[in-house]
Order: sequence, then structure tokens, then C-alpha cells
Amino acid sequence: MSQELDASRWTVAARKSARILARLGTEQKNAALCAMAAALVAGKDEVLCANDGDLRQAQADGVEPSRLDRLRLDSVRIDAMAQGLRDVAALADPVGETLEEWTRTDGLRIVRVRVPFGVVLMIYEARPNVTVDATALAIKTGNAVILRGGREANASNQAIVRVLQQALHSTDVPTESITLITDLRHDLVDSLIRLRDQIDLVIPRGGASLIQRVVSGALVPVLETGVGNCHVYVDQNADPDMAKSIVLNAKTHRPSVCNAAETLILHESFKAEWVVVLCKALIAAGVELRVSRPLLPLLLPLDPDQRHMVKEASEQDYAQEFLDMTLAVVQVESLDAALAHIARYGTKHSEAIITENPQSARVFMESVDAAVVYHNASTRFTDGFEFGFGAEMGISTQKLHARGPMGLPELTTYTYRVYGTGQIRT
Amino acid sequence: MSQELDASRWTVAARKSARILARLGTEQKNAALCAMAAALVAGKDEVLCANDGDLRQAQADGVEPSRLDRLRLDSVRIDAMAQGLRDVAALADPVGETLEEWTRTDGLRIVRVRVPFGVVLMIYEARPNVTVDATALAIKTGNAVILRGGREANASNQAIVRVLQQALHSTDVPTESITLITDLRHDLVDSLIRLRDQIDLVIPRGGASLIQRVVSGALVPVLETGVGNCHVYVDQNADPDMAKSIVLNAKTHRPSVCNAAETLILHESFKAEWVVVLCKALIAAGVELRVSRPLLPLLLPLDPDQRHMVKEASEQDYAQEFLDMTLAVVQVESLDAALAHIARYGTKHSEAIITENPQSARVFMESVDAAVVYHNASTRFTDGFEFGFGAEMGISTQKLHARGPMGLPELTTYTYRVYGTGQIRT
Repeated sequence: MSQELDASRWTVAARKSARILARLGTEQKNAALCAMAAALVAGKDEVLCANDGDLRQAQADGVEPSRLDRLRLDSVRIDAMAQGLRDVAALADPVGETLEEWTRTDGLRIVRVRVPFGVVLMIYEARPNVTVDATALAIKTGNAVILRGGREANASNQAIVRVLQQALHSTDVPTESITLITDLRHDLVDSLIRLRDQIDLVIPRGGASLIQRVVSGALVPVLETGVGNCHVYVDQNADPDMAKSIVLNAKTHRPSVCNAAETLILHESFKAEWVVVLCKALIAAGVELRVSRPLLPLLLPLDPDQRHMVKEASEQDYAQEFLDMTLAVVQVESLDAALAHIARYGTKHSEAIITENPQSARVFMESVDAAVVYHNASTRFTDGFEFGFGAEMGISTQKLHARGPMGLPELTTYTYRVYGTGQIRT
Repeated sequence: MSQELDASRWTVAARKSARILARLGTEQKNAALCAMAAALVAGKDEVLCANDGDLRQAQADGVEPSRLDRLRLDSVRIDAMAQGLRDVAALADPVGETLEEWTRTDGLRIVRVRVPFGVVLMIYEARPNVTVDATALAIKTGNAVILRGGREANASNQAIVRVLQQALHSTDVPTESITLITDLRHDLVDSLIRLRDQIDLVIPRGGASLIQRVVSGALVPVLETGVGNCHVYVDQNADPDMAKSIVLNAKTHRPSVCNAAETLILHESFKAEWVVVLCKALIAAGVELRVSRPLLPLLLPLDPDQRHMVKEASEQDYAQEFLDMTLAVVQVESLDAALAHIARYGTKHSEAIITENPQSARVFMESVDAAVVYHNASTRFTDGFEFGFGAEMGISTQKLHARGPMGLPELTTYTYRVYGTGQIRT
């Protein structure tokens, strides 16, 4: 109970400021975004100095190089963060948009209007640029934001938020629109996500365990993002060159992200010689294959120096998001079997079929239960910027409220405003 | 763990049938709705006989009369349920609707399409007509439904579902689209609402404690419905006749429902004589008043036989949903104080201002954080039928996904279908 009280201390200022933010005009919010961009460039030294401290500590703690890289800021990265703020300022403001409007025969006028959520809690991991991104998207949509970043980036995040808050002093956006949680105890997060009356939405961004923890513990409504066990299904009628190009792209273009492919599903009638060509190309690109047993004999023609890149797949290989240069490969006897595999192991993120057969394409497109379903294209397009949203708050893998890439409108809700002249219900 | 396994047994058939349902056409779903309507009329005796058993048991258990009435079915009520099925058949089918569509410069075509959620779990209380309503709305929107009704209506619900399922045999809608949970242990519900992989959405409909239990225990995304601590704020510039008419309607038209008013907020400059007129009218209509202390002297002019209907309000009176002929009355010194009272005690359902001052109206309409905000109209209009949706799945009081009255579109989600010709990300 004392912990709960402790948690609500972090939300009071945000709640208050959300009420002010909700009624600000687009110009006022944009002015604040531009002021923050300028302040970030001017405050570069302060931020870089704090980041240097984080990096030293992380190195001392033996943090792995890929994570160090995500943590590292430099002048170019800060300029990019500032540009991100200006880009969000340039986007259309969804708040205040009339979504629907009608008048009843008794004259009662009903208007459905887009409004901010109120207070949004973001829980994320290493990358300090998320601190700026999330703030930009929240303020543009009239939401106060509570940020709970990773322990490793704590000093960087504090410096960034200090700079951003100072910039707000000269604007109409209240300083308290940005709250950084500096007390990083897990208990506090667990309490925050239970404050249903005080926080309107929680968005976890990070690995599967972070998301699982938030989904399990939250009473506040959650927008689940991220985990993508994506499949590319190569149908018997696939164009082999297109299949090769798309599979390579989906797996190797950026294997560490959620829209990368993790399993290749091959129809058993897809010609054996093409399977070999495809697998050779993947191995040549540095991909380690975990193949289902029936595929093993097909891969005998591989050179001995390639064969060590092929292992038999375990059940676990189908279920996991590798997020590296590993690809599970499974053979199926039919489109239905491919659909069943995806239904069993997929995470409802992005799924693709490669086929020249319009009927198979139609069945796949209409049957797969995922945020984004592709015909003859790479899963890598599941991205707010690729979709043309100009921003991205993560990829939703749940079905409630928002699905797939989330831009500005997904950070809003709506209200009905009903205008009468004394109407009562009879 | 064994309990979890037990729970998932109830979802297997629904999941399977959801995949079939999602791809059915409007005609096929409508034919099933009409077949169910006919079967319900033909099966009247079976349903009434089961209902009679439920009623006897409830009477023996000493269930209160108002609840008995909600439980009771008769020929007219069954005809109305059948008509409800036909009415839903006549509504437009939201599934398959293209919500947005655009083509990138590289030719990739992105289409956002409305699709069913999949499997929807409804948890509700006494009234057996919800069994039919929920089934109708779910099937029309291509969702399989799992129904968990109240213990008192168990025999009625079993008879209704048996009749509806039999009707489906002659249609394209799988019988397993309707699952009735007949094992009414609370543990089973607690397990069901944790099956995030198997159930896509849970909608609790009922009292505050039911909703609280579901919100607290669920891992499955929840659409919270129902609790309405609604306020009518009478501004200093209110038309006194309009104020009287709206307050009476909002409180007394049907006090047991969520859109009824529970607190009247009076601006202290609203004339004392009008306050007396308003309170007299409420008392004459049978309303018991719980008034804030500063209002007590104002009500001295009341006749002695009216004065016993006035008590001093406690803090608790402002916080609760009376759902009967009781109304809290509080005086405030300003519009801001009224807004603060609503922000503190409101449940984000329906809130109204009565005023002739356009500036006060604007501030109220833009500041109140609720599903539906009214200017010069009764809160009683917050209803799917009054809004013209032709159906209602409850009133959402959360902000994620749906707010206010929910009709058919709110029982759907969307997916992105992306059509390419070999596009890869570079």
C-alpha cells in the first residue's frame, strides 16, 4: 500500500498537465516541439557528457557491444533526435478532428471528436532516443508522458529530459507534461501499471520479457508492441527468383528487428533444385538454417563448407524470435498446413506468402490472423515510416484499439460531444 | 496449471470456428441469425420450461423481486429476443469494409480492412436475453462467442443456447460459434480471462464488482463497460425550466441504468428560489436527496413532509452509483469547481452541463474527460439505440479501442493487407 502511494506521487503532475495539454492548439504544441529541438542541439554537451557516464558504467558492467552501440549518443545522433522533433511538428495534428457527426430528428447533434488519452506511460529499454521520440509523439497528440527508461541509460535520459523540460518553460506546454521516472525499482513500475485511475495507457517497448511483465501486471490498458515471430511462406507456385529476393530481404536486411522473418515455410512441391538455390543464397549471406527433418536430404548437394550452417530444427526453433542471422525452415504439404503452422507459432505481427496463384494468395490474405499480411512482398515493410505515417510508436501485436504500425492517431481516443436544446428521453 | 488446462478446453472449438466464421459472407451470417430467430420462437416451450426452473430456484433462494423480474422470460420477451436477432441481421455488416487504401510509389498497395476479433468472451449476470443479444452481435461481426452467464439463469441459458446451436446445423455458421460455459466455478472464469493466446477480447457486463474482478484478473484485453457515476451541472446561466426538465429526466426516467444521473452539481449563483423549485420537483417525483451542507438552509422552505426526503450528503454519496431514486446534490462556486468535482468522482461515462452561456458550455464540453459530454440534454441518451447504432454491446468507460455506446464496428478490429509484386526493403 505504501508502495502504491509512492507510485501515485509520480503521476500527479502529469495528470494535472494533461488537462491543460488537451486543450492546447496545434500551433502551441508545435512551438514546444521546435523549442525542444533547438534546446537539444544547444544542450548537446550536457547530454553527451551524461551519456559518456552511462557508457563507462555499462562498459564496466560488461554490457555487450550491440547494446553499448544502442546506448551511445554522438553529435549526429542528437541532431537526428532534434530533427525527429521538428518532423513530428510538421505532421498533421489528429486532436480535435471530427470523426463523425450527425443530427437526430429531435435536433440533438452528436459529434465524435478525436481527443488525447491523457497520461501515457512508456516503458522501454536501452536506447535514449526513445526518450525524445516518445515525448514528441505524446506532446503532439496532447498527452502527458511518463517515461520509464532502462537503467543503463538513466543519466542520459535525465540529461535529455532536463533539456526538454527547460525548453518548455518558454512555451504554453506545461513542464510537467514530461515526467521521467528516476527511481528504477521494479516494484515501482509494477505499482505504476496498476494505477488505472491515474494513467490512461501503458506502452511497453522492448524485449519479450519486458512486454510479458507489463501485460501480466497491468490494470492500466496496455498497447502490446513488438514481438514478431514472422513467417515467409513460399507456395508451390512461387516465382523462385522473387522468393529468393524476398526471403533474403526479410531475413538479412536487419535481422535484429521485429519485422524480420524467423521461419521460412516451403511447400513440398516447390522444386527441390530451387530449395537448394534458396538455401545456398541464405547461407552465403551468413544465415544459419534450422531445417525440419524431411528437408535434410534435399540439402545434401550443399558444399561441405556450407553444410555446417545447417542444423535440424527443434520444436523450440519454430516458437522463438531469433533476432539474429538464424532462420528456421519447415516444409509443409499444403497451404492449409502452412496456415496451421502460422496459427500455432505466429505472434500476429507480419506474415507473407510468395505465390503466383491468385486463389492461394486470397486464401492466405484472408485467413492469416496478423497485424500485416503480405502477398509477394517482404515483411520488412511493417514500419510506421514505410507505411507513410511519418512517425512510429511501435508495432501493435494486439487487436484492441490499434494493430500494426502505430502513428499519431493511435495515440488518441475519442469522445462524443452532444449538443442539445433541452432534449430529454421519453 | 490443471485449472488452466481445464479452461482451455472451453476455447478450442470456439477458436476453430472463429477461423471459419471470419471468412463467411454477410448473407451466410444473416441466414444463421434468421434461422436462430425462428428456432427461438419454435423452441419457446423448451426455453420457458427451463426458465421456470430457474425462477423456482431463485425464489427458493430468496432472490429479490427486481432480480427475479430480470430473470423472468415470457412469450413476449422471447418474441422480442427473436426480433432482436432479425434486427441485427438487417444491420450493415462491418466485416470486410476497406477503412483506408493507398499505394506507395514502388507500387506496394496497402489496404486496411475491418476483420473480426476472433473469439470474444462475454461475462454477464442475471438477464438471459443478453445470451441472445451477445450471440447475435458476435455472429454478425464474424466472432465466435464464449458466454458465461449468471448462475441464476443457468438453465435458461442452456436451453437458449441449445435452441440456437440446433438452428445453426442447417446454416454455414459452425455450431461451435456459440460456447456456453456451464461450469460456473469462479476459478474457471479467472482462468479463462488469462488465456491471452486463445481469447481475443473479454467484455464484462454487470455490476461494479464483476467488472472490477475481470479488469484485475484478465490478461486478455478487456473492454470495460458500464459503471456510470454521471453528473448534471446546472450553471448560473441555466434556463431553470430546462434544468428542471433535464435533471428530472436524467434521474428518474430509469434510475437503475448506468446513464442515469447520480449527482446534481449546482452553481452557487443559480437562484435559491429555483433550487427550491428543482428540489421540490425531484422530491415530488420520489427522489431522496443527499445535499451538501451549504444547501441545507436553502431547503428550509420545504414542507415538513418533504424535508424527510433530504439528508446531508457524505463523501461516500458523491463517489457511488446509487442506481435508485437517490440523488446527491452539491453546490460549487465556479465552473472550475464543477469540473474538479467531476474529475474527482466521475467514472468517465456521461456528464452534462445546463447553461445558456456558450463560453461555459465550450469549456465544459472540451474539458470533461468522459465518453459522452452533453450540453443542454439528458445523460439518458448514452445508448447504442439512441445513437442510431441499431444495436448495443454495452457502454465503454475506458479509452482504449471504443468509448461510449458500442455497436457492431466496435466488435471488430482491422488488419493491413499489403499487395506486392516482389517489393523488398532497401
